[in-house]
Amino acid sequence: MSTKKGILYGVSVGTGDPELITLKGVRILENAPIVAFPQGLRHKKGIAEGIIEGYLNPRQKKVPLCFPYTTDDLVLHQAWEKVAFEVYGYLMQGYDVAFACEGDISFFSTFTYLAQYVKMLDEQVVIQRIPGVSSPMVGASALQIPLTMQEEKVAILPAFYSVEELEKVLKTVDIVVLLKVHSVYSQVWQLLKDLDLLKFARVVERASFPDEKIYIDLTNLSSLKLSYFSLMIICQR
Amino acid sequence: MSTKKGILYGVSVGTGDPELITLKGVRILENAPIVAFPQGLRHKKGIAEGIIEGYLNPRQKKVPLCFPYTTDDLVLHQAWEKVAFEVYGYLMQGYDVAFACEGDISFFSTFTYLAQYVKMLDEQVVIQRIPGVSSPMVGASALQIPLTMQEEKVAILPAFYSVEELEKVLKTVDIVVLLKVHSVYSQVWQLLKDLDLLKFARVVERASFPDEKIYIDLTNLSSLKLSYFSLMIICQR
Repeated sequence: MSTKKGILYGVSVGTGDPELITLKGVRILENAPIVAFPQGLRHKKGIAEGIIEGYLNPRQKKVPLCFPYTTDDLVLHQAWEKVAFEVYGYLMQGYDVAFACEGDISFFSTFTYLAQYVKMLDEQVVIQRIPGVSSPMVGASALQIPLTMQEEKVAILPAFYSVEELEKVLKTVDIVVLLKVHSVYSQVWQLLKDLDLLKFARVVERASFPDEKIYIDLTNLSSLKLSYFSLMIICQR
Repeated sequence: MSTKKGILYGVSVGTGDPELITLKGVRILENAPIVAFPQGLRHKKGIAEGIIEGYLNPRQKKVPLCFPYTTDDLVLHQAWEKVAFEVYGYLMQGYDVAFACEGDISFFSTFTYLAQYVKMLDEQVVIQRIPGVSSPMVGASALQIPLTMQEEKVAILPAFYSVEELEKVLKTVDIVVLLKVHSVYSQVWQLLKDLDLLKFARVVERASFPDEKIYIDLTNLSSLKLSYFSLMIICQR
């Protein structure tokens, strides 16, 4: 007897506030027999897990998946192979799997690797991505500013870039969003000071979480200690 | 007797599929006595209006607001002054107003001007922005690709740019999203052909609408006729 394979859903769950998930995301999470999510660090609850727990019921199987925080290619390859194999096991048995991921599912998301490695196991698996709310837009709303207007061009950079690269981007577009700015904050602050752009820069820490913090004036904040989910918006207007 | 002023909410309602609104957006729309939205063109229903109609009840007052499609500064100034004055009238009477806008409220949104002009009438008005799902992420999900991964830098450009500007941006970042690409499609196609980048370009028309269309291979599509809500994603990977 052949069983029809399950569908793998990538569900965007927003940036922190559980109400920032979409109706579609909730519907798919509620109906999936298997709900997977990135495992939290050091036995703590993960972000996506915290966002979705109120929408799940006790009959659903919850599957935490380990995505290690490393840049070691081999470790990552092995981890992605392992999570893909686990998820594929459920799909093979005919169960749909909803993978919940913070932010948007296409935007610097762990789902990218899960989907890629599941496809390597079986090209025929059906994958559906449910888009969601992502941090640059949530950050702009928190700061009460338009992220972009009229003819403005925007660039979004993850935390891996040199100060030279940032300077080049600042000359090319009007608005720059720096994700996970905590690790490079001091260098960025110095560059903005040198370019006389500090007045255009704002920081949001943990946007949409209950402990969200915003910093409007960075003039005297050369060495701000920020947590992991911090972004900077530089609006050259 | 003084009445407490109402709050002005900017509610992101997503790109087309009514299920891509957030739970928070729906809650605020359902509870607002006044629900405003951009008036449709030529007496047709507007996009945001079409998305939210199923979530409203007959007791709520629906207020279509005219945002003219023009680049004439004077016409725009007068229109924004008029809509701000109308909305402020409700706020003054103590009514909350929820303004529904397609996409994300901070991202090339008409709400920017409404909020700005209401603030000019009265700096004390409380404004809250509810972030939402925006077209670059919806487009990437429709195309079944990650928009960004690992260390990639992304730039998003509205339709107003020269081919020279686009070429510069393509050299600066890895991923480029062109919004409302219909008006410049032929020039962009030619540039990508000249740069041998056509193989990295994909187009989505009316992402998340029932009649969504995707174009994966543009090699033989030098003069594609696209509708207003079309975007191109150029992934140089």
